[in-house]
Amino acid sequence: MMPIYNFSAGPASLPAAVKQQIKAELDNWQNTGTSVMEVSHRSPEFKTLMIENEALLRDLLNISDDYATLLIAGGARLQYAMLPMNLSAPDQTTIYHVNGYWGSLAYQEAEKFCRVHTTTVPPAKPYQPQHNLGHYEPQSLPTDADYFHYTSNETLEGIQWHQLPDSQGVPLCCDMTSDIMTRVIDVNDYAMIYASAQKNLGIAGLTLVIIRKDLIGQHQQQLPTLMDYQTYFDHHSAYNTPPTFVWYVMSLVLKWYKQQGGIEAMQAANREKAGMLYDFIDNSDFYNNRVEEAIRSEVNVPFWLNDNNLNEAFLAESSAAGLKALKGHKAIGGMRASIYNAVPLAGIEALIDFMRKFEKKHA
Amino acid sequence: MMPIYNFSAGPASLPAAVKQQIKAELDNWQNTGTSVMEVSHRSPEFKTLMIENEALLRDLLNISDDYATLLIAGGARLQYAMLPMNLSAPDQTTIYHVNGYWGSLAYQEAEKFCRVHTTTVPPAKPYQPQHNLGHYEPQSLPTDADYFHYTSNETLEGIQWHQLPDSQGVPLCCDMTSDIMTRVIDVNDYAMIYASAQKNLGIAGLTLVIIRKDLIGQHQQQLPTLMDYQTYFDHHSAYNTPPTFVWYVMSLVLKWYKQQGGIEAMQAANREKAGMLYDFIDNSDFYNNRVEEAIRSEVNVPFWLNDNNLNEAFLAESSAAGLKALKGHKAIGGMRASIYNAVPLAGIEALIDFMRKFEKKHA
Repeated sequence: MMPIYNFSAGPASLPAAVKQQIKAELDNWQNTGTSVMEVSHRSPEFKTLMIENEALLRDLLNISDDYATLLIAGGARLQYAMLPMNLSAPDQTTIYHVNGYWGSLAYQEAEKFCRVHTTTVPPAKPYQPQHNLGHYEPQSLPTDADYFHYTSNETLEGIQWHQLPDSQGVPLCCDMTSDIMTRVIDVNDYAMIYASAQKNLGIAGLTLVIIRKDLIGQHQQQLPTLMDYQTYFDHHSAYNTPPTFVWYVMSLVLKWYKQQGGIEAMQAANREKAGMLYDFIDNSDFYNNRVEEAIRSEVNVPFWLNDNNLNEAFLAESSAAGLKALKGHKAIGGMRASIYNAVPLAGIEALIDFMRKFEKKHA
Repeated sequence: MMPIYNFSAGPASLPAAVKQQIKAELDNWQNTGTSVMEVSHRSPEFKTLMIENEALLRDLLNISDDYATLLIAGGARLQYAMLPMNLSAPDQTTIYHVNGYWGSLAYQEAEKFCRVHTTTVPPAKPYQPQHNLGHYEPQSLPTDADYFHYTSNETLEGIQWHQLPDSQGVPLCCDMTSDIMTRVIDVNDYAMIYASAQKNLGIAGLTLVIIRKDLIGQHQQQLPTLMDYQTYFDHHSAYNTPPTFVWYVMSLVLKWYKQQGGIEAMQAANREKAGMLYDFIDNSDFYNNRVEEAIRSEVNVPFWLNDNNLNEAFLAESSAAGLKALKGHKAIGGMRASIYNAVPLAGIEALIDFMRKFEKKHA
């Protein structure tokens, strides 16, 4: 059978070994005689999974005891509200550095719950791509802000922070949905990190929050119980029934990372993959990527055909060749290869090989 | 291999045919060459699934166009907050009839967001089982209340409403988490119904909300985008990435219901299963269930051994016999058989057979 490579931006590829394990134990998990989908979150088997999952997260990201790791049902966009509701207040100030699509949505949601100082002009409607990563005056930031929020990787624009933003000492909160686990970070640089699972932590339905413990429970407002970080902290993220299967898949993905050599190995692999693809595009007269080299994303590589009339043919022929989900976001157009951890080097090689052949055929 | 029957209260048993299908198509769904877990919620294949799922829900429950069906990430407990935030306000009144554990939690959460008239004494801590289903004076209800909330089936106590409560015309809102799809209802009797998925709608991670369309978007407060029913209504429950795999499992379970003959057939099967088990217990001098017959649950059957000293032996021997998760909730003690739609009649027969043998051995 022809190998299939899935370049979806999310829900995204899972490691092949993880899919095999899910399938193999789907109807008898841990000798329970039942599927993991049918097991109570209060069962000894699932409690063991929860404990192992947290230990793996802490090991892979080198998370100290000063931080809690919470798993919250839903996606990162729920955090766009939970973050200001928990860490700020209507009469307090936060900073949002908006450098792309997701950052602009986080900023718009935060405005409901606190005063927001934004370093950039609010985005136009319909959305226009932004490339203003890092374009702000650190000296003009309000130093009494509760936090400085940014998006470490913007999946539409294909741009990524390769260093920490200068927040003038204001605590950093980061939406790492698209690049957590893809490169080495120092958690101690952050007050709070969040990332939904469907890119590099398994499948859709859970969001990981890593937060300094002293910031939990400081809110002054009445919050819905399930919008309060304290609830998750007090109950090991199982105050109510969590999405158990999603949690299970995350634990398999984390084990796979560990087997592959941890986040250092993921980072090395991702740099090789991204480098190879950008090199090919930059040396081409048929394809292009106009993002400044210094802020290019190592996980989402948007690219355009110089002749837009060939887009439909490119999508049809690439799909037929087993290269799936290459269509760019409608706000950006063109193509996008999302090359998260689970996309192997062989997938990049196959993509480049196809792009070369397509050019030869259509140039 | 010995057949395994899973009596877990939730996450609960899935139909065997559904598990088989999940396994069979796990790495190649709809000829995409990828797993359903890896497919974008914006893909044509997943959009078709979403449309079919809604059509099946409407067909099985005979839902008219006056109602919206929403799928919301998370469990029913998020609805304990979303319901009053969307349908009431801090200076408005709601009615909560509390007749068990889950109802008491819904009532406690609602108190944060509106004035709550409760028909019962707030529950003690630690929780004491309640059997006061329907014990209130309809004439004393505030008729200007925004809604009357109740829990149609209480899983701990094993009690269930077998008729509509008298709300004096106040719109009914019902937590049907544990008995939706297990018996025929008339959706038109309700303003709003909600049910998390992990009992009779698949696996944990999604909650179904059925709500009269004219009630959506009437709230006066600023809500988090993902706590606003309008967001789900406007975007077919896919404003952000939904838990796609959970949604997929729901669609398979609904198809299975349809194949089995719909909700009428489920109701008939559940009555037979529950009747058989209660009959056995009532005719026993070794086991007991003290719930009044008129309010007994058809889906959660708690029972006690007359000699509590035999509890550990009962749990160990039943598990060894392939009868899983029979331990009662810690607030209630004893045993509990949750016999939702996916538990076959053969499971009830095996349970009764075991209970008979256990009695013979230990009496």
